[in-house]
Amino acid sequence: MIFSKTEYKERLIKVHSGMQKKGIDLIISQDPANMNYLTGYDAWSFYYAQCVLIHVNEDEPICFLRPQDVGGAHIKTFLQDKNIIKYDEKYIHTWPSHPYEYLVEIIKQKKWDKLNIGLEMDSHYFTAFCYEKIKTGLPDAKLKDSKRLINWVRLIKSDREIDLMRTAARITENGMRSAIDHINPGIRQCDAVAEIQKSLISGTSQFGGDYSSIVPMLPTGKGTSASHLTWTEEKFITGEATIIELAGVYKKYHCPMARTVLLGKPDQKKIDTMKVTNEALDAGISEVKPGKTCDEVAQKFWKVLDKYGIKKDSRTGYSIGIGYPPDWGEHTLNIQKGDKTILQPNVTFHMIAVMQFGNWGVESSEAIRVTEKGSELFCNLSRELHIKG
Amino acid sequence: MIFSKTEYKERLIKVHSGMQKKGIDLIISQDPANMNYLTGYDAWSFYYAQCVLIHVNEDEPICFLRPQDVGGAHIKTFLQDKNIIKYDEKYIHTWPSHPYEYLVEIIKQKKWDKLNIGLEMDSHYFTAFCYEKIKTGLPDAKLKDSKRLINWVRLIKSDREIDLMRTAARITENGMRSAIDHINPGIRQCDAVAEIQKSLISGTSQFGGDYSSIVPMLPTGKGTSASHLTWTEEKFITGEATIIELAGVYKKYHCPMARTVLLGKPDQKKIDTMKVTNEALDAGISEVKPGKTCDEVAQKFWKVLDKYGIKKDSRTGYSIGIGYPPDWGEHTLNIQKGDKTILQPNVTFHMIAVMQFGNWGVESSEAIRVTEKGSELFCNLSRELHIKG
Repeated sequence: MIFSKTEYKERLIKVHSGMQKKGIDLIISQDPANMNYLTGYDAWSFYYAQCVLIHVNEDEPICFLRPQDVGGAHIKTFLQDKNIIKYDEKYIHTWPSHPYEYLVEIIKQKKWDKLNIGLEMDSHYFTAFCYEKIKTGLPDAKLKDSKRLINWVRLIKSDREIDLMRTAARITENGMRSAIDHINPGIRQCDAVAEIQKSLISGTSQFGGDYSSIVPMLPTGKGTSASHLTWTEEKFITGEATIIELAGVYKKYHCPMARTVLLGKPDQKKIDTMKVTNEALDAGISEVKPGKTCDEVAQKFWKVLDKYGIKKDSRTGYSIGIGYPPDWGEHTLNIQKGDKTILQPNVTFHMIAVMQFGNWGVESSEAIRVTEKGSELFCNLSRELHIKG
Repeated sequence: MIFSKTEYKERLIKVHSGMQKKGIDLIISQDPANMNYLTGYDAWSFYYAQCVLIHVNEDEPICFLRPQDVGGAHIKTFLQDKNIIKYDEKYIHTWPSHPYEYLVEIIKQKKWDKLNIGLEMDSHYFTAFCYEKIKTGLPDAKLKDSKRLINWVRLIKSDREIDLMRTAARITENGMRSAIDHINPGIRQCDAVAEIQKSLISGTSQFGGDYSSIVPMLPTGKGTSASHLTWTEEKFITGEATIIELAGVYKKYHCPMARTVLLGKPDQKKIDTMKVTNEALDAGISEVKPGKTCDEVAQKFWKVLDKYGIKKDSRTGYSIGIGYPPDWGEHTLNIQKGDKTILQPNVTFHMIAVMQFGNWGVESSEAIRVTEKGSELFCNLSRELHIKG
């Protein structure tokens, strides 16, 4: 196991405390990152219904899984056998039957069907169908949105978690260096990404890389105005910029990074915009310390953009840690005007400036830890526009 | 664009026809594969709410996206500008606000709010929260489950789609050969997967590989009893088996494959089980032709297992085509007893035998096309236990 049983217990205590404050007796958590955080469970089985049940008075969660994933739970979690419950294979993609029919039975057997039950209403894999099965199956339960209660517990990392993120950062740097090396005129985008992925997955000689919850995104040319485009089999072209957004990952902990490469002659407009972007990032980062709010960091960032007359609507950061596809964000704090979350030591976030202007754009970012007195950057790699002449 | 505008129109006509039969006036489709199928849209933006609206009387779908993804829609889709609608950045991860508040406004403006609306109730990214926003925002609409109507249209591939899958198959073979080459005693699992991913993403000299909707799964040792485990930084061990499940992907079309490698001396039990598994797969495949049902194929498969007294509960296949994380299955037909879906030419499926016995297992599979008179295997690579002495 990656963490001590004590660390898992401490996490559960924090979740229980949050449940008591919110009047929640039982949480049904289907977010794979939350499942991992509370049990250690880690497998690519989130493509169909599964969950963790957390009862406010039980000292161990219950993992609810497909039969062929129970073996994985025995390998990956600290749970007692009795807390790993499997549903029948007959429920796999045979609508209208659904695994949550059996989940409802379990909850009834345990006489938990009249409780206040917290649901992760906007968690990726908690579908409308899962929700209907619970509503219909547990008519006496009081259902409410848990409002990312477990995600909020994940916000402040333990020192062990920070260590894993520091290792992920070394992998990130290797991956980005590989990107900058392999993006060249006449090279197919897929061949550059093949090298980037090789680097990210291989990791370092000491620490192996894990899969990222997002593949390397690589918008190029006019695609730089659209941040979520992935690679194609087309070749890189002299004179065009490419934005690379990727994450090194170690034991599911992510450390993302964005940089921009320009092939060919220096382009003053892009160089200047990159400088302004970095000035804004630095201004925001200089404001990071315990007690400050996300809003205050965002105000500093946007003040620089305002000075240069640059308009940007999207948020400029979000918390990071454990991630599973399709997202490495934790869905808690945003670095955005109006977000009053107070920063605390070992809060970790990705401060990213996506700057888009019609048919072109630049990007850069830093993964950041809030320290006792300020902040620490996880990675060390120049944010300047990487011009390859 | 990957397909002609005519092909997109033909797809839409089939969807419209299905809608008429089911009494659905409007579909809200959030399944990224369905969005791609009907519009060409393709970006890693499915980590938050987006969708395609298909009205039964409109000759073009509407793409509903985040502002920073609109540029991608202009690049990737055939849609007119007016059919690419963006919602405000203020909706990104700022609950209780949500992008679907604006979606509801759009539907009202178009006076579609009293229609029969089909929802993809168990589609991965259609969360309970999305559903509640629609229910609350459109109280006069008659909401119903579209029951994977668009997925069912995707079941029968065009010849152009088959061509893409054949290209994906070449990439699959390269990836699996790379796996068999690089899985060796003393090699870290991550280093073998780094090579596999390099091969899959690079593709062939002519065709670039795309990202797979599932990363290569690589359970090894006692992990072979748990099918969805991914790699670790541990080393491969002599005497242990490793199951590799991966897919070559070309322009989002998947061709999956599973094989098993054994390091060290031949192990008769595993060799024999692999032979039986392959005999069962062959028996099932020999039954594949237009007019036969999935049930009939499954019966032939299980008859072989019964002969050898082997018990297996999980389904032994599912339809394949376009895929996005977290799944390459299409969520329509299953090769399982009782599935009465009738096979037709250009139905494509992955027939996979996951055989688990307590603390060990073997696997193999074929990606299959139903032809006019029988079947065609997409790939050509031995299914025997690959023993590396």
